[in-house]
Amino acid sequence: MQMIGKASVAYDKVIYLQGAASVVGQKESEGPLGKYFDEICPDERVGGTSWEEAESNLQIKAVGKVLEKTGVKGDDVRYMLGGDLLGQCMATSFGIADYQLPFLGLYGACSTCGEGLLVGSMLVAGGMAERVLSVTSSHFSSAEKEFRFPLEYGNQRPLSATWTVTGSGAFIMTSQKGQDTGVKITGGTIGKITDYGIKDSMNMGACMAPAAADTIARHLCDFNRRPDDYDKIITGDLGYVGQEVLLKLLDDKGFDLHGVHTDCGILIYDRETQDTHSGGSGCGCAAVTLAAYIVRQIASGEWKRVLFLPTGALLSKTSFNEGKSVPAICHGVVLERA
Amino acid sequence: MQMIGKASVAYDKVIYLQGAASVVGQKESEGPLGKYFDEICPDERVGGTSWEEAESNLQIKAVGKVLEKTGVKGDDVRYMLGGDLLGQCMATSFGIADYQLPFLGLYGACSTCGEGLLVGSMLVAGGMAERVLSVTSSHFSSAEKEFRFPLEYGNQRPLSATWTVTGSGAFIMTSQKGQDTGVKITGGTIGKITDYGIKDSMNMGACMAPAAADTIARHLCDFNRRPDDYDKIITGDLGYVGQEVLLKLLDDKGFDLHGVHTDCGILIYDRETQDTHSGGSGCGCAAVTLAAYIVRQIASGEWKRVLFLPTGALLSKTSFNEGKSVPAICHGVVLERA
Repeated sequence: MQMIGKASVAYDKVIYLQGAASVVGQKESEGPLGKYFDEICPDERVGGTSWEEAESNLQIKAVGKVLEKTGVKGDDVRYMLGGDLLGQCMATSFGIADYQLPFLGLYGACSTCGEGLLVGSMLVAGGMAERVLSVTSSHFSSAEKEFRFPLEYGNQRPLSATWTVTGSGAFIMTSQKGQDTGVKITGGTIGKITDYGIKDSMNMGACMAPAAADTIARHLCDFNRRPDDYDKIITGDLGYVGQEVLLKLLDDKGFDLHGVHTDCGILIYDRETQDTHSGGSGCGCAAVTLAAYIVRQIASGEWKRVLFLPTGALLSKTSFNEGKSVPAICHGVVLERA
Repeated sequence: MQMIGKASVAYDKVIYLQGAASVVGQKESEGPLGKYFDEICPDERVGGTSWEEAESNLQIKAVGKVLEKTGVKGDDVRYMLGGDLLGQCMATSFGIADYQLPFLGLYGACSTCGEGLLVGSMLVAGGMAERVLSVTSSHFSSAEKEFRFPLEYGNQRPLSATWTVTGSGAFIMTSQKGQDTGVKITGGTIGKITDYGIKDSMNMGACMAPAAADTIARHLCDFNRRPDDYDKIITGDLGYVGQEVLLKLLDDKGFDLHGVHTDCGILIYDRETQDTHSGGSGCGCAAVTLAAYIVRQIASGEWKRVLFLPTGALLSKTSFNEGKSVPAICHGVVLERA
């Protein structure tokens, strides 16, 4: 039986993370994780003529890189899963079409990387695929254009705002033993849409923290584990503001995550020197931090078991302009040393 | 072994369509399938204050109706899958949050209904869930606002244009024997993004027909079947213009679908009296036609095996304004009498 609790899975067979690749922009390369990324794109348009094309090109590069690193041929990938933040997941549709793989489009805002890893590993664990590739991306400029102000406007950003990561991460999951990253996916918890009624889209951390708290609490209950059963519990892009809210919410639920919790949005930029305020965010934030850093920490034995929780704010510019709140979702993936 | 060919699945165990429900607007209720729908909403805002809220409310009603019809409690649904056409899948995020179910967001434009049935049935067949609910929707006015012109502008529609269906369809899939619709899902074929370079977003049928032709041809090869192994092969929303292109493309590939092919966009409106030009379209088109009509035809024994193929045009208003082509995707689901 692989289902546990009401919303979690624990796999009977080993699902290997066969490969992980990260492609980022210049700013990300100048952050604390700079040396770990597979490819840096100093050209902010990544060879394209629009911000959307730039983001598509990040995905193309990330998929190419994970295939190159693993030696897997495109033809040996059964399904590709993918998504991004743009309306109608435009970066993905125009990004990975050339690979001509059976494709399942996902939308979970910045949680999409977690959704891809969960759906992909469930399909492999269920015998529906030998090998699945998952890719997600975000781009600072395409996201600002999609959700906020024209860059030319040069608006002031509040200290609660996060900086959208320019980057794409791609992952290959398989049940077949062979060369892999040294990391396996052993299960996870599917998120629920959680809405505390917060309307400030410049404080995404506060909008998403309740979803992360809900998924973490349900995960620990479903698996009958305590926070210290994990070496790290790492959310996607709550940033400093969201982390504070998360720790408080979990304290109230009886879980102490101080010490064990960190966040990809906190890890990826230097708070003192990079002027990114609350931290990093975007579909690419959790994806490239996982591919470049978390996988490395687990493979080296530094961490033995990690709960990885990309968080997504399910707003659109229409919902924002209509005065709606920002619902959020968070999917949890258990990563262990293979 | 449940994987066949390069992109298809055929399930070892029986996946029942436990329930199907359809909720539509006034115009759809006046079409040829009018008497089959579960609920008609004469109020075009469906009790909401915006077109987006109207569409969210269609989803809420469709999910409520499928739970009511089957007697399944929300708590007994393991995952909900859903999506729609709006930027950041806004109708879904604000629609089904109140059900508080573990949620996986999908994006495949108007193919999303097929993607939901495929992913849902794969998760059930793979032992990852006892029961999955899938919901999709579209609304004429929210779609016009999102992709085309303000309604107040009263623009002329070319004869190749389709009319976005106002409606939502919800489905419950389970492997547990019991009361069901009399229909089972026995497998399917995952689509690839296909782009013939067509840029006319007022001719979605032509944009999507190549994707449908590709999926149908791959499906028939993977399953080693001929078109007449199906009582009907039913695409999602190609309409009359797209049907003509599809039949020609498949002729060229050596498959004669004349006679066996029809399209939900053709079935849902009366061509002579409803002024819908090439037919119906939208995430809701295939979903409500399946829930209200196709399921009934299979359950009654009229049709024994149907290949159901929702088609999706992966454009956004940004991609259109940037002069991009309209890539498309089509997922195939095999439905048989249980």
